[in-house]
Amino acid sequence: MAESWATFGRDLHLDLTGSGGVRAALTRALREAVRTGRLAPGTRLPSSRSLAADLALARNTVADAYGDLVAEGWLTARQGSGTRVAHRTVPRPGAVRAAPPEQDRRPAHDLRVGTADVSAFPRSAWLAAGRRAISTAPNDAFGYPDPCGHPALRAALADYLARARGVRTDPARIVVCAGFMQGLAVLGRVLRARGVRELGVESYGLWLHRDVLRRAGLRTVPLTVDGHGARTEELAGHRGVRAALLTPAHQYPTGASLHPDRRAAVVDWASRTGALILEDDYDGEFRYDRQPVGALQGLDPEHVVYFGTASKSLAPALRLAWMVLPGQLAAEVAEVKAAGEWGTGALEQLTLAEFIVSGAYDRHVRAMRLRYRRRRDRLVAALADRAPHIRATGIAAGLHAVLELPPGTEQSIVQAARWQGLALDGLTRFRAPDAPTPHYDALVIGYGTPPDHAFGSALEALLGVLP
Amino acid sequence: MAESWATFGRDLHLDLTGSGGVRAALTRALREAVRTGRLAPGTRLPSSRSLAADLALARNTVADAYGDLVAEGWLTARQGSGTRVAHRTVPRPGAVRAAPPEQDRRPAHDLRVGTADVSAFPRSAWLAAGRRAISTAPNDAFGYPDPCGHPALRAALADYLARARGVRTDPARIVVCAGFMQGLAVLGRVLRARGVRELGVESYGLWLHRDVLRRAGLRTVPLTVDGHGARTEELAGHRGVRAALLTPAHQYPTGASLHPDRRAAVVDWASRTGALILEDDYDGEFRYDRQPVGALQGLDPEHVVYFGTASKSLAPALRLAWMVLPGQLAAEVAEVKAAGEWGTGALEQLTLAEFIVSGAYDRHVRAMRLRYRRRRDRLVAALADRAPHIRATGIAAGLHAVLELPPGTEQSIVQAARWQGLALDGLTRFRAPDAPTPHYDALVIGYGTPPDHAFGSALEALLGVLP
Repeated sequence: MAESWATFGRDLHLDLTGSGGVRAALTRALREAVRTGRLAPGTRLPSSRSLAADLALARNTVADAYGDLVAEGWLTARQGSGTRVAHRTVPRPGAVRAAPPEQDRRPAHDLRVGTADVSAFPRSAWLAAGRRAISTAPNDAFGYPDPCGHPALRAALADYLARARGVRTDPARIVVCAGFMQGLAVLGRVLRARGVRELGVESYGLWLHRDVLRRAGLRTVPLTVDGHGARTEELAGHRGVRAALLTPAHQYPTGASLHPDRRAAVVDWASRTGALILEDDYDGEFRYDRQPVGALQGLDPEHVVYFGTASKSLAPALRLAWMVLPGQLAAEVAEVKAAGEWGTGALEQLTLAEFIVSGAYDRHVRAMRLRYRRRRDRLVAALADRAPHIRATGIAAGLHAVLELPPGTEQSIVQAARWQGLALDGLTRFRAPDAPTPHYDALVIGYGTPPDHAFGSALEALLGVLP
Repeated sequence: MAESWATFGRDLHLDLTGSGGVRAALTRALREAVRTGRLAPGTRLPSSRSLAADLALARNTVADAYGDLVAEGWLTARQGSGTRVAHRTVPRPGAVRAAPPEQDRRPAHDLRVGTADVSAFPRSAWLAAGRRAISTAPNDAFGYPDPCGHPALRAALADYLARARGVRTDPARIVVCAGFMQGLAVLGRVLRARGVRELGVESYGLWLHRDVLRRAGLRTVPLTVDGHGARTEELAGHRGVRAALLTPAHQYPTGASLHPDRRAAVVDWASRTGALILEDDYDGEFRYDRQPVGALQGLDPEHVVYFGTASKSLAPALRLAWMVLPGQLAAEVAEVKAAGEWGTGALEQLTLAEFIVSGAYDRHVRAMRLRYRRRRDRLVAALADRAPHIRATGIAAGLHAVLELPPGTEQSIVQAARWQGLALDGLTRFRAPDAPTPHYDALVIGYGTPPDHAFGSALEALLGVLP
């Protein structure tokens, strides 16, 4: 026994490179010996005096290490019975049963829709804004943040949105969210609590948004979408529908701007019936043929919730978006948001506030507008030149375009593109399953996605798979 | 009519300081005229030619501004009827009906529990880490982040937690959250979906945590808390309880370290019954009398979910926390997290990863450990000296201490303190309403809350209100 313990002592590998010195190293080594089963449950350990002698350590060091492991539950210490390994099988951590990642291999060319050109993220300007914001922030800014957003960012947004998007608001009605989807989920829960059961959506849109609404307990009723946007006049025919989610500036993804008559119709509907319009203004800053059309919210701030985001204008990585609420909803939304405790990091918010107030946001949007506009022009010119039977539909705006295809060809073209290493989306993916809109074959081309240097080759790859 | 229009033109205030030049300024001025009612619904506007002449502008500029406002819905244009103000009453934004803020006036002295000393936030080191992380990040890092956390941060945490807290994990089992509460809410939903209905909690704890669990559809069953932490042996008596939320390293807020026998009992219970332990390790890095006791998770990684946070070690403003999951739960939690789409900003995550890997996190924790330890020592010494009948209970750890009071005095002392401008919490606030634990009067003193320069006067104020 004495011999085996001497061996044990010699075999203990004391790794002194970790933190905490000799005692911590001995604790780790003993813990590993229990974990790996080299010390079986019930085994009595040598006295601290004898192990200390074996290892040429101070007795207290060993006694302290034993004490640590008793406190953690690896060893037990009983009067008269000495220190023993606890009777417990020590399970190994299980392997992760995770679904394989959906998009593991990166495509050679990426024209999928939904992401800005993140290679153009203004790293230096962002870091400079962060430096100014964080080094001058009052200490309070590092405490628990207001779940509705930092006052400095809300003030900067109120000013910016009025100026750039014609939104009528004050900071108290702005709620900062960790992305559009969080805002939509919170608002969905508030609507449900108010008794809303059905919500109009556009026949084409992002399935994720419909899912979020469904999880909030709302039924989605699709509206017909055509070349003038959603047929908002259909809302009056659905008695149970008390809210509608729309993309007025640039229908997502088919690309129309909502016709003035339909803007009027939907605002009148909301005001007449007390319904609520959810305005998803995801890319409102990016219009190339004219001044951007101002937000619908400006027409009726008490019946429109305006949603904006930094995901398209800056980068999705920031997870920063904002809602502008009717006054009567602000308190309810704040309550749900606070109860969920999904605050957004305050330092990023302060950085964005400084980025906006300093003018860097406007400069970046202007630069990106030019970049995206050139890409769209290049796409349209290339089509006219080399695939004149394919038309880019929708207004000159945003980060994507829709290419109408000959009937029945969409699926095979998406498939062929994938084989060529070109990732892109067919329009079918965006169609609500219960949509009344007659379907047509088309590609949704996210020309804003690739970095500048890769756009040309992605465009070539696209031209190569078009019929 | 011609005269009134001439006046109208002259009265239009073109503010050219905004963005977009003359056309945008004219659009804004006309929009304001409609909004404010100066242009009544139905009013026919002057022709673009005549208004252009009045204002000395190009005709196209006026026509474009009219077009903008038609597109936005403020004006209508009909063949043969000219441009008119739309028939619509324009509601003003409503006032916000918000509850008055709870803590509007800042107290002169703040010893409330729950916040770190945020005046010590390492601004320069954080900015330096951010600069290194953001300037070297690949472009991908600016796209949509992994809802379970950026791989770089998960890798840094896996290493740190093994080293500092004895946690056994790999990055695939770590999920980054926007604070502990988000993690708890997500896990609560996963447990509910697995059929768990009841969850054990400590009799003393944060009401917000019990609320989050209740909102997830779980009933909370309080366990007795005494000087050895929660009586985990009571769990076996509750047949329906299949999970338990505990603070083993430092019971919150009463301050005990969970007794080794109770650590053993709860791990055995979980392993025997297939139950899950939720280990809230909110301040595990801060122990002053010995090496911190390693995490319970190390004993049984398949039955313990470990929760850590940067709120105590760095600052709540970051909204960064982490869960370490059993392998069998990782996929389910990832799914719920992704469906909620509550991602955390990737740039902050990259900054924290760099902060940890560079050693700045360890340095900061060491510095704060010294600072908090000194404050605790000062508090204990001051009590011994000037209020020897009041005892600070609990282990020497964390950012708060509990002071036992003579029976029946807690409420009047908290009240008296408030009158003196000293904010502090009584223990009663933390007690679960249905707790089996006999209650005692005490103060929970957050000695970690004030900045260094304000701690002395806060301590004096405290001594002034003690009986």
